[in-house]
Amino acid sequence: MTDKDQFPSPDTWYGHFVSYGETDAMGVVYYGEYLHLFERARSQFIRERGMSYARVEEKGIFLPVREACCRFRTPLRYDQHIWVRCAISHWGRASMRFAYEVRTSDRKDVAATGETEHACVNPAGRPVRVPDWLKELFGK
Amino acid sequence: MTDKDQFPSPDTWYGHFVSYGETDAMGVVYYGEYLHLFERARSQFIRERGMSYARVEEKGIFLPVREACCRFRTPLRYDQHIWVRCAISHWGRASMRFAYEVRTSDRKDVAATGETEHACVNPAGRPVRVPDWLKELFGK
Amino acid sequence: MTDKDQFPSPDTWYGHFVSYGETDAMGVVYYGEYLHLFERARSQFIRERGMSYARVEEKGIFLPVREACCRFRTPLRYDQHIWVRCAISHWGRASMRFAYEVRTSDRKDVAATGETEHACVNPAGRPVRVPDWLKELFGK
Amino acid sequence: MTDKDQFPSPDTWYGHFVSYGETDAMGVVYYGEYLHLFERARSQFIRERGMSYARVEEKGIFLPVREACCRFRTPLRYDQHIWVRCAISHWGRASMRFAYEVRTSDRKDVAATGETEHACVNPAGRPVRVPDWLKELFGK
Repeated sequence: MTDKDQFPSPDTWYGHFVSYGETDAMGVVYYGEYLHLFERARSQFIRERGMSYARVEEKGIFLPVREACCRFRTPLRYDQHIWVRCAISHWGRASMRFAYEVRTSDRKDVAATGETEHACVNPAGRPVRVPDWLKELFGK
Repeated sequence: MTDKDQFPSPDTWYGHFVSYGETDAMGVVYYGEYLHLFERARSQFIRERGMSYARVEEKGIFLPVREACCRFRTPLRYDQHIWVRCAISHWGRASMRFAYEVRTSDRKDVAATGETEHACVNPAGRPVRVPDWLKELFGK
Repeated sequence: MTDKDQFPSPDTWYGHFVSYGETDAMGVVYYGEYLHLFERARSQFIRERGMSYARVEEKGIFLPVREACCRFRTPLRYDQHIWVRCAISHWGRASMRFAYEVRTSDRKDVAATGETEHACVNPAGRPVRVPDWLKELFGK
Repeated sequence: MTDKDQFPSPDTWYGHFVSYGETDAMGVVYYGEYLHLFERARSQFIRERGMSYARVEEKGIFLPVREACCRFRTPLRYDQHIWVRCAISHWGRASMRFAYEVRTSDRKDVAATGETEHACVNPAGRPVRVPDWLKELFGK
């Protein structure tokens, strides 16, 4: 679906070993856990750009998730090493979208794909224009 | 978005108090937790039809999630009483879709909506036609 | 271990259906999920006394967990109906302990037991004497 | 409590960035998440010894948790980098205990300590003597 060459850049690859607590009685990673993985990759993306999302909040900008989708292709099992690829796929006036791929250890097979849409709001929860410093930081 | 009258039927309303463990540092329910809520509502939907999903699996039918989406409108807070409404919105040959609404205590405001698509597979993981007994059970 | 007659009172019984997301690849409830169950029972205990823990925090009293223990006897499976029994087992000057039992549907078999110790602190995180209104509320 | 020199060896240090999903409305890591962190450190301990716990299970040995305790000293916040130290602290005939420390980024401050006790059982769930290969693998 998402071809490697079409994936937006800059991107980050978050490496992860599947834990027992992430699996369910079907023996595979529970579907809700993918949103945790996406968030960890997102945090790493920001961290690699030299800032923490904690710092973004301190500067008065919050990025709550407005929509999240995930398509599950190949199940993941305990102790499997995976990569979660993450990049910004779209900028809105007061929002942004992240794209995700979950790939197996060799980075070849795409086990899942997903997107999250984030509003850009102030501490009062009101939508605000994405600040320039954030765009620059995130590589627009 | 999903009008009360347009929501598919039969439906179920899963009542729930938001726990502390479901919240995050923003003081609201973490986005990944909604997929847990959807699953709890789905299980209740099946249970109310006189069967457990555990029994469905014993009969050789598995319904792994193939896609999940959620739109977040209004944040939910600790100890808030909510309802998760759930029904089947679409039948495929070897799949089905569930629709969800998260509503506040008075059942009026829709705090979130979502869908999950499930493949119908045998114990070997191969897609199989949805059995008639399952359609009848689920109220088609 | 904890005999029914020895369990402290007043107590609460929190009813719960095991969800898929709570199980792991061993097919049983993941050990970390018991602390979520304890918290849900604790919240119900407070709620039944006519207050929400959210309100306790608004009144400037926080009860962070200082220690938590759990002993697992019998595994729990998906869709099993269980009870989590909860009561206060000990009052300290600036702390309190809760005791828990996880019981099967018929309330006879004890599947797990546990305790949590809570500090009583002010908004600044400093230990404070347990207020009288809290003791009265919690049934001391 | 657990002095650095008294901690059993061999040990492992599992590095981790606190995610948003691990925090709660108090702004700190939820107490149930520590058991996930312990499990991740335990898995890494086994992995560093050249085997996966998945492989241990394939060889017919399961190590379900029989008891878990955790003492919380200093709260952990979003995006904080932490270490989870883990080692085997005790061997029983058909059981073993792991000890844990959660340390801050500089490895100096101990934010939490914990233990888990594991039964050694066969695929039927019956207690069995800890196999010699497991003891050798785990560094006894």
